[in-house]
Amino acid sequence: VKVFELPEILAALDSGAVMAAVADAFVRLHQGGAQITPPGHLAFPDAHGDGHLKGGFLTGDDVFTVKLATSFYRNPERGLPVSNGFIAVISARTGEVLALLHDQGQLTDLRTAMAAALAAEAIAPPGVRTLGIVGAGTQARLQARLVAGRLGGPELLVWARDPAKAAAFAAEAGATAVTRAELGERAGVILTTTPATAPLLDARHIRPGVRIVATGADAPGKRELDLSAEADLRLVVDDPGQCIDHGETGWAVRAGQVRPDQLTELGALLARPRAFPADAVVVADLTGVAVQDIAIARSVWTRLAG
Amino acid sequence: VKVFELPEILAALDSGAVMAAVADAFVRLHQGGAQITPPGHLAFPDAHGDGHLKGGFLTGDDVFTVKLATSFYRNPERGLPVSNGFIAVISARTGEVLALLHDQGQLTDLRTAMAAALAAEAIAPPGVRTLGIVGAGTQARLQARLVAGRLGGPELLVWARDPAKAAAFAAEAGATAVTRAELGERAGVILTTTPATAPLLDARHIRPGVRIVATGADAPGKRELDLSAEADLRLVVDDPGQCIDHGETGWAVRAGQVRPDQLTELGALLARPRAFPADAVVVADLTGVAVQDIAIARSVWTRLAG
Repeated sequence: VKVFELPEILAALDSGAVMAAVADAFVRLHQGGAQITPPGHLAFPDAHGDGHLKGGFLTGDDVFTVKLATSFYRNPERGLPVSNGFIAVISARTGEVLALLHDQGQLTDLRTAMAAALAAEAIAPPGVRTLGIVGAGTQARLQARLVAGRLGGPELLVWARDPAKAAAFAAEAGATAVTRAELGERAGVILTTTPATAPLLDARHIRPGVRIVATGADAPGKRELDLSAEADLRLVVDDPGQCIDHGETGWAVRAGQVRPDQLTELGALLARPRAFPADAVVVADLTGVAVQDIAIARSVWTRLAG
Repeated sequence: VKVFELPEILAALDSGAVMAAVADAFVRLHQGGAQITPPGHLAFPDAHGDGHLKGGFLTGDDVFTVKLATSFYRNPERGLPVSNGFIAVISARTGEVLALLHDQGQLTDLRTAMAAALAAEAIAPPGVRTLGIVGAGTQARLQARLVAGRLGGPELLVWARDPAKAAAFAAEAGATAVTRAELGERAGVILTTTPATAPLLDARHIRPGVRIVATGADAPGKRELDLSAEADLRLVVDDPGQCIDHGETGWAVRAGQVRPDQLTELGALLARPRAFPADAVVVADLTGVAVQDIAIARSVWTRLAG
């Protein structure tokens, strides 16, 4: 078993190739060719930590993956990052353990941002000029860069609950820190990237025609959007079951604003791109699926091993 | 992350210390201090393979484990062993990945045999003189050695479906190959170690007073024993839910021979040893639990890291 540490992994990363692999994985997930184990969760309350374990296999691949992602919220007190973990790459022909990517959670961050970029590109109106970012953390940074790259370099606006963080992000990313109202008014595409548990954007900010990519609601109780505005609401989901269980979609379904049979799978949209009505509110609800891990690990490992 | 390959792992193994750790883990499992993720299964039908993924944590431990075990049944054609896999050891205080034990399934084999030895010792009648072994594979070999060591060196009898394998095992282990009838008549303790899907021992072989340790029924459809004999039947289980789901216990419960509330947990028995009635048929049904993996990995890793 060869262990690859983070610097090697990042050096081997080909962002374009990984993004194409992630897109392909979503299409194959939609087409039914994936096996995913039930999510395994372990809690370490004494250490304010938890761990998430998942295995996944895309039919026809020559490898499968096992991913452990941990978060220990007291680690900064010890000078350690909160996130840690690995993705193991295993032969789907012999079971041989080929590599351990000791990515410390970074590949998870990256594949989340890549899914956001793919979704943003798939739902964005033609010629969008302004990208709004809600939040100023790791996902905001990664998504701003990747999404802007896919949308031809739009103007960047940012709003975050902490104005100091928004200002720092604006300086770093070449964005303009604005009020929530201005962001809602001006942005053609909005990325919401926070761990909020109550809506940050509601009918006052979500105007007809806007496209939103929401990546915050990755666990029960999390929520960034109030979608109860009178609008032609269209929901694009990475995994219908997960999104109904704990994504933004769940809130909309439980409130009767959308029915489960009205959801569009991201993989279906990537397989057959199509335009949405200009006045519709289109929300891509991304809760995170194991095929993203498989795609990024496989892509990185292929370059490391080659 | 340090990777330890199989030779290092086996060199660091302290059988007595690991056995004590496994016993302790069963007791703690019984006392409720364990978290185990739902079993994750991936199937690779094209390659005649499958993979099993499990994470586990014993409350209060400083580490937790993630185990992948694979079986690819065409590997021998390529000169590779069927079994493969790893146990990762992770800090339960910070999430740091401490070690990858690339045990290729060997620690699983060993912890299964150790559980059998602990169970045999716990249910054996005093002064047992004859140990019967059903099967002639890896588990038969490991269990014969470990159980005999716990029972003061009894005479060994072996029966297997393939007489040539039984003879080879007998020569290697210092055992006598016998008929099933003779094994049933003479053995005070019997170990059943096969992947059988229909009973190998029934009322003709299971006499009052015998003690049986059954490790074959580790998945639905597997079965080594027909326990329908008129007898005072006592069942000791490693995990009540698992044993009712797919162990020997399940067959007995579904046939109405025993009720779920009559089962004895192995951890309870190890915590408070007690004798069973001399004429009872006592069966220890071992389906395999993740706390065994935690115990053996933790024990090995402590020596490797120390």
